[in-house]
Amino acid sequence: MKKLFVIKIGGNIVDDAVALDSFLQKFTTIDAPKILIHGGGKVATSIGKKLGIEPNYVNGRRITDAETIDLVTMVYGGLINKQIVAALQAINCSAIGLTGADANIIPAVKRPVKEIDYGFVGDINSSQLAVDSLQLFLSNNLVPVFAPLTHDNKGQLLNTNADTIASSLAVALSKLYDVRLIYCFEKKGVLENVGDENSVISLINKEKYQQLLQDKKLADGILPKIENAFAAINTGVQEVLIGDANDLLQNTTDNTVGTLIKA
Amino acid sequence: MKKLFVIKIGGNIVDDAVALDSFLQKFTTIDAPKILIHGGGKVATSIGKKLGIEPNYVNGRRITDAETIDLVTMVYGGLINKQIVAALQAINCSAIGLTGADANIIPAVKRPVKEIDYGFVGDINSSQLAVDSLQLFLSNNLVPVFAPLTHDNKGQLLNTNADTIASSLAVALSKLYDVRLIYCFEKKGVLENVGDENSVISLINKEKYQQLLQDKKLADGILPKIENAFAAINTGVQEVLIGDANDLLQNTTDNTVGTLIKA
Repeated sequence: MKKLFVIKIGGNIVDDAVALDSFLQKFTTIDAPKILIHGGGKVATSIGKKLGIEPNYVNGRRITDAETIDLVTMVYGGLINKQIVAALQAINCSAIGLTGADANIIPAVKRPVKEIDYGFVGDINSSQLAVDSLQLFLSNNLVPVFAPLTHDNKGQLLNTNADTIASSLAVALSKLYDVRLIYCFEKKGVLENVGDENSVISLINKEKYQQLLQDKKLADGILPKIENAFAAINTGVQEVLIGDANDLLQNTTDNTVGTLIKA
Repeated sequence: MKKLFVIKIGGNIVDDAVALDSFLQKFTTIDAPKILIHGGGKVATSIGKKLGIEPNYVNGRRITDAETIDLVTMVYGGLINKQIVAALQAINCSAIGLTGADANIIPAVKRPVKEIDYGFVGDINSSQLAVDSLQLFLSNNLVPVFAPLTHDNKGQLLNTNADTIASSLAVALSKLYDVRLIYCFEKKGVLENVGDENSVISLINKEKYQQLLQDKKLADGILPKIENAFAAINTGVQEVLIGDANDLLQNTTDNTVGTLIKA
């Protein structure tokens, strides 16, 4: 099967013009089909503040109320997404900016209200992704760039975590491609010792994961990423890499940087 | 050649939820390839005001400064565009929201500074449009929905009039399709007598246009639309219709409503 790279970047790259430029330069050099998923970043918060939209928390969890879904639709789906697309076009990478509503690629279900009403948050079922449209774009040398937005097929846009979108796309496409899912983040990889930047764990398999959980070595921020990674691995994705964008894209066939997650 | 509908809607529809819903319902019933182009609307102005972005005029002409291009990228390219896409998906129309930067469909040139520096405004050359990508989408039953944004191929997004985008798309596609370009606006058509809503001119050809110009019967607002229409007609578009959205989409093969512009 043909190799496909599904790469997710977050606020540490999106918010930093120099880091973003450096990332996009390296991203374009990947000589294979590829998909980029970007997170939000601080710009949404700062624009929200100017618009008088206060972050709304219930029991410590951020809620996507009606004002907030409009805000993220503007900032993620418009400003950040189209700026990345324009920047990629400038370096001869024919990007196409998308949300999950476009071509109905990522239908979702508004999260059911249990203890918390998360508001306009969408949960995805990977089996329902429109793989045909994605393949149409990829096979015509278009590079999909996804904002972290989905929709409910009833006209409502929904906020969906970018890591989850990345893993769902990776899973859905693993039937057609040999998928490498890459989570870029602010550390060199998953750290054995949170205080030591050089304690990167080079490989996490299921046993190692259980051991890390038992030893309570996984910081709050990394836990959902690893859960997403294993969800992807368990449903068809070949391998997941977590680490620093510069390192990981320096040599996309090299497994000696970052943390590799495999079954 | 196959029929293609290129339909532009402006603020009178985009700003009015009921009118927009009614328009989109009719739009989906067009049983032929179709492209929608939407303008901006008042929501950009009201969000701009909240963000402290004052409209910037030089010699009475609106300037797209750096703050404003970010604003319209958010509001046109994000909020309005993706809400229309989600609304179309809900009625089984597989829309794909685009700017001119996406798939490099509409490259533009930043308007050269002469008497006025218009700022981040893009001028289009129809011959440079990426017709291949458009045809790829159309032939796969995807319905392109364009925000009025282009880019300069150097990473900068640009503001381009939605009427101009519509006519440029119509011209570029007239080599492959029998194109009907439809400008929806707030009147029933071009009026012989500006004060009389029932004085719709049913047909404007070149002679009639010259006569209307001589008689100074064309209001300021309609003049650029007719200029765009004739620019399209002169470069390959079969016909242009101007009028009320509800009338024009009621029966898309009927020429008895609105104003038909033909060579």
